[in-house]
Amino acid sequence: MSDTRPLILISNDDGITAPGILATVEVMKTFGKVVVVAPDSPQSAMGHAITINKPLRLVQNHQFGPDVESYHCSGTPADCVKLAIDKVLHRKPDLLVSGINHGSNSSINVIYSGTMSAAMEGAISGVTSVGFSLLDFSWDADFLASKVYMQKIIASVLKNGLSEGVLLSVNIPNVPESELQGVKICRQARAKWVEEFDHRTDPHGRDYYWLTGKFQNMDKGEDTDEWALAHNYVSVVPVHFDLTAHHALQNLNTWDI
Amino acid sequence: MSDTRPLILISNDDGITAPGILATVEVMKTFGKVVVVAPDSPQSAMGHAITINKPLRLVQNHQFGPDVESYHCSGTPADCVKLAIDKVLHRKPDLLVSGINHGSNSSINVIYSGTMSAAMEGAISGVTSVGFSLLDFSWDADFLASKVYMQKIIASVLKNGLSEGVLLSVNIPNVPESELQGVKICRQARAKWVEEFDHRTDPHGRDYYWLTGKFQNMDKGEDTDEWALAHNYVSVVPVHFDLTAHHALQNLNTWDI
Repeated sequence: MSDTRPLILISNDDGITAPGILATVEVMKTFGKVVVVAPDSPQSAMGHAITINKPLRLVQNHQFGPDVESYHCSGTPADCVKLAIDKVLHRKPDLLVSGINHGSNSSINVIYSGTMSAAMEGAISGVTSVGFSLLDFSWDADFLASKVYMQKIIASVLKNGLSEGVLLSVNIPNVPESELQGVKICRQARAKWVEEFDHRTDPHGRDYYWLTGKFQNMDKGEDTDEWALAHNYVSVVPVHFDLTAHHALQNLNTWDI
Repeated sequence: MSDTRPLILISNDDGITAPGILATVEVMKTFGKVVVVAPDSPQSAMGHAITINKPLRLVQNHQFGPDVESYHCSGTPADCVKLAIDKVLHRKPDLLVSGINHGSNSSINVIYSGTMSAAMEGAISGVTSVGFSLLDFSWDADFLASKVYMQKIIASVLKNGLSEGVLLSVNIPNVPESELQGVKICRQARAKWVEEFDHRTDPHGRDYYWLTGKFQNMDKGEDTDEWALAHNYVSVVPVHFDLTAHHALQNLNTWDI
């Protein structure tokens, strides 16, 4: 008897042992056959890095019990997805879910996000892909409300489908479910991090720097993910990987180069 | 006497010793005061990774002679730009040039590119930013024609400026200058890499995998960077960091979540 349920690939950037990916496995098991391929160590802020200069390790584990096929990989989130499709599943899955990330992937954070790079790698390969993030960096974050909204959003995605080349980035405010106001479809807010590196001296007298920064939202729009999250909505941003600034083409074509 | 020439930050992803960044320094010295902050080792395919879990080292060097201020950094290309603005320049430069990359950053490669992540980090900070790539992976690539086109393109950028939030990705075919057909303003082609991991066994009997793949251009458009490069044009793609798939917003708002 062949398994006719959807084949669902799960990955993340916090690593295979993160509570956030366990929450995803628990929800996604109700939708179909789940296979996990996730980094063997935290890979936050890895952006869309891939590993070309060293070999990758891929090891089967039993992290999620006997009924979930699961692997950890020495690479980045994007590596995990590539390796999963080529060497674990031997085909494209029907759905890819990345996360639940411990921390925000709203606005400009999508650029730096390992969680979203796994989802984007899926979308590039033509897989329906969604990344989830809870706005709580702590390891013991409470994923209860996130799981409820993952259930709702994935049900909608499976019912409606996504256009080719479009994936979803879902961010969930860190409040109890009773305070959540529902789901808002949003655009990415125009925001940035302003760096303030912490300059220190090591015991050998040499300088080193820790990256720190302040998040600056310059965008007053009420259709942004930042607005939605500040007002306790779950934000859903459709994301694509055509980085062309199409609106700039016409003007550039007037240049005399 | 204060220096009134433009302040130009240079970075790359192949590392401070790569011939491609030397080519950039040579050209950009003719436009203004040059400061180099580049990775101390190759960082290709690092995407938009940033370093948050370990400290960064930043060391002044004399890689480009006595008249060029230069530093190497233990971080990624995006780290280099952040650190340069906060701790080296103590202000935003007037221009950021990343590269010249040894290899292609056309179409989907922009997502994986460390070269373009440095340029994008500049643009996010509000700096006029351009990334250059020569379609030749070899260390002894010939940058002669690339330097001629860098000169032309940067002169145009300084004359015309770039819209807020828009950077340029320039790719140069690997042919002699006499065969180049000029510059084409392009959009990113719809293309992808199809992975074929090379599965091997190490001397201890354990499996490992090398990432390899085939590039697949699905896009027949003659307005794409792939078309331009195949026809010996220098491709210039305007890039932005709003990853919102705006065209998908309307349909998503009809969903009943």
